[in-house]
Amino acid sequence: MADTTLMDKLVSLCKRRGFVFQSSEVYGGLGSVWDYGPLGVELKKNLKERWWRAMVHARDDIEGLDAAILMHPRVWEASGHVAGFTDPLVDCRTCKARFRADQVATASCPQKPSKAPGAHSACDLTEPRLFNLMFKTFMGPVEESAAVVYLRPETAQGIYVNYLNVLNSSRQRVPFGIAQIGKAFRNEITPGNFIFRTREFEQMEMQFFVRPGTDEEWFERWRGLRMGWHHEIGLTPSKLRWHEHGPGELAHYAKAAFDIEYEFPFGWQEIEGIHNRTDFDLSRHQEYSGKKLEYFDQAANERYLPYIVETSAGADRVALTVLADAYREEQVDGELRVVLGLHPALAPIKAAVLPLVKKDGMPEVALALYHDLRRHLPMFYDDSGAIGRRYRRMDEAGTPFCFTVDGQTLEDRTITVRHRDAMTQERLGLDQAATWLLERVAAG
Amino acid sequence: MADTTLMDKLVSLCKRRGFVFQSSEVYGGLGSVWDYGPLGVELKKNLKERWWRAMVHARDDIEGLDAAILMHPRVWEASGHVAGFTDPLVDCRTCKARFRADQVATASCPQKPSKAPGAHSACDLTEPRLFNLMFKTFMGPVEESAAVVYLRPETAQGIYVNYLNVLNSSRQRVPFGIAQIGKAFRNEITPGNFIFRTREFEQMEMQFFVRPGTDEEWFERWRGLRMGWHHEIGLTPSKLRWHEHGPGELAHYAKAAFDIEYEFPFGWQEIEGIHNRTDFDLSRHQEYSGKKLEYFDQAANERYLPYIVETSAGADRVALTVLADAYREEQVDGELRVVLGLHPALAPIKAAVLPLVKKDGMPEVALALYHDLRRHLPMFYDDSGAIGRRYRRMDEAGTPFCFTVDGQTLEDRTITVRHRDAMTQERLGLDQAATWLLERVAAG
Repeated sequence: MADTTLMDKLVSLCKRRGFVFQSSEVYGGLGSVWDYGPLGVELKKNLKERWWRAMVHARDDIEGLDAAILMHPRVWEASGHVAGFTDPLVDCRTCKARFRADQVATASCPQKPSKAPGAHSACDLTEPRLFNLMFKTFMGPVEESAAVVYLRPETAQGIYVNYLNVLNSSRQRVPFGIAQIGKAFRNEITPGNFIFRTREFEQMEMQFFVRPGTDEEWFERWRGLRMGWHHEIGLTPSKLRWHEHGPGELAHYAKAAFDIEYEFPFGWQEIEGIHNRTDFDLSRHQEYSGKKLEYFDQAANERYLPYIVETSAGADRVALTVLADAYREEQVDGELRVVLGLHPALAPIKAAVLPLVKKDGMPEVALALYHDLRRHLPMFYDDSGAIGRRYRRMDEAGTPFCFTVDGQTLEDRTITVRHRDAMTQERLGLDQAATWLLERVAAG
Repeated sequence: MADTTLMDKLVSLCKRRGFVFQSSEVYGGLGSVWDYGPLGVELKKNLKERWWRAMVHARDDIEGLDAAILMHPRVWEASGHVAGFTDPLVDCRTCKARFRADQVATASCPQKPSKAPGAHSACDLTEPRLFNLMFKTFMGPVEESAAVVYLRPETAQGIYVNYLNVLNSSRQRVPFGIAQIGKAFRNEITPGNFIFRTREFEQMEMQFFVRPGTDEEWFERWRGLRMGWHHEIGLTPSKLRWHEHGPGELAHYAKAAFDIEYEFPFGWQEIEGIHNRTDFDLSRHQEYSGKKLEYFDQAANERYLPYIVETSAGADRVALTVLADAYREEQVDGELRVVLGLHPALAPIKAAVLPLVKKDGMPEVALALYHDLRRHLPMFYDDSGAIGRRYRRMDEAGTPFCFTVDGQTLEDRTITVRHRDAMTQERLGLDQAATWLLERVAAG
């Protein structure tokens, strides 16, 4: 199966089963903006909840935060985004197309796709010009006089400017971290690959504040923890790898940076970055705000600006990774079976309850079981169509288990459990179903 | 206690205990934008989770959705926001102050606060001019040529334009609903009252699609359900009331509208609206998109545009309501006790574990209990300071229970449970603590 075909199939399944829809589709869509449907919103919630539990609830040394998207414009001067968060762009005066300057050599000329922009005789390219990637808006009602504010291009700065507030209101001491999940916006020139690179996206970020000199040790520790997390959510280990930023790649604020990359159908791409940001951010905010941002270490009786180790993952990217990793097609009895092999903890629906036929009292037993289980976990009830078709529907939705109420159920109060991945079946006592299912979902 | 004092105290407690910080505070703050701190983010998460469970997981007839903030600009033409989401404003040419036209008579002149704008001899007011309250931004890198897009001023439209996608990918039939939690933005002229009216805010909305003619019945049913929800999260019933929109107040799209109002320190204010929007929204989107948005009812063999009953609550407003309702001051043994009487299901920390003294093996037992309980629920461990002060800290954080490990614990393996509200104490077996606590948190 060709790689583009795989992405097309995934996009199509996502729409058909209600994972992801194109934004404003009835109006022809809005470029590279996507909406999460009924199953997608649950998948993404499960993913974020799992990250939050690992990063905040399961640890004593990390606090949560939810900073606003709108921030004081000086924040982005201090961070370097106003001056430096730019891409050099080249326009073609003839065809009005626009390209990233570093991609002119490899892009296609829209008028003559066999050539690169500039290589065709009618091309008339401008010199590269810098464009800021931050979305700009105006606070206050009148555009001319209102304050220009930006939609944050990353969530990290909301953590830095709050770090003393968090320290003062919690009982944390360095080393400690602040975690946040929230939206950010970048006016990308070339978004694409479904929900991989979008202009509006959600980040799961943690900033860990450490004593200078201990930063390299913490950096290594966080690399290990974060790669471990991606294994735990069920991603195929051989499709994950490290990419170390070489000297030419390192951001101006970083002393070291490693990306966790996943092998998508469109190639190896970053899904999370771990960065040693040194004291760059706090020293800049100290300089621009004129406020002392030093930490006072009582035990050592010393003052310093903490170094920061950052772990930054895209929630939408990880959702896409989970979907792409879970998607598979199999030939079963001469028919195509499409399966989303989602980890039970991430699956939007944990189990379906299906009466084998719509008579003989089976629907009544099945509905009672469904209502009982739904008090604990998201469930699905389906009584329409052949049982095989109902299994296939749940395979596509990533539902790990189906509980079927059949003739034997009415005799001995057992149900058939059908496993999504192996398609094996076993019998289970009706009154054990809740415990059985809760154990398997929690085991993740 | 004067009402403004109460709000000041609440704002101060929220900063001190890490519920809410002012955005970009080190830069002097950004007007009416707020960040949620470690306890605030948990409170708001609990609130949203409770809403989601009641509206989506506990029901068969509602699906979740998470539409993007950025939408196609035609959406806002169809919805009426481009033409009509405006406030008439008046400027003073002398002092450059700006007022909402309907508030000129009651506002103060900044130059002469004893008079209203226009009443002072130096005032030079413009005629009222209309200003749109939507935040505008530009998609694509170059401002001049880029598409103007808006930050959504409400989440509802994301549901309307997706309603057929949800119908086609789920097994729902009318009557059914779509629920969504997400951010929206309004360039308010007069934001204020802490997190009550902010320019960036989060909504919890549900749009219920019904057969025309059944809308009034569903409207009444949803009124009852939503008021019941506010009672269930523990709000004082006597501080909740209905406000019916009279003919002069009704929005252009509404056939009937009721607000749930809460009695804040600054007066009765809306925290949720229930609206009968008729088929206004779907008929407008059908007209502007040119796509048929009718529902086909197979059983009745008829086609129609469903009517919509909307329930729309502000997550930040409800969070403020919960905080204001929970805040109280008491005189205890001649000292002031400040308590946040939060419902256990909403409290950011469910229980604290406290060794009575920092010796005799008590910290070891307490830490073991803390780590055991933290696998299930958010807990807090505190061993510093007098036990009375530690209780007070937890009172301010809204923690419903404290588990104290004392001398008797070492003898008979029981702990002291101290109740936040009544300040009563009882003893509980160490090995029963998890079950005891889980029951009380779930009972909400």
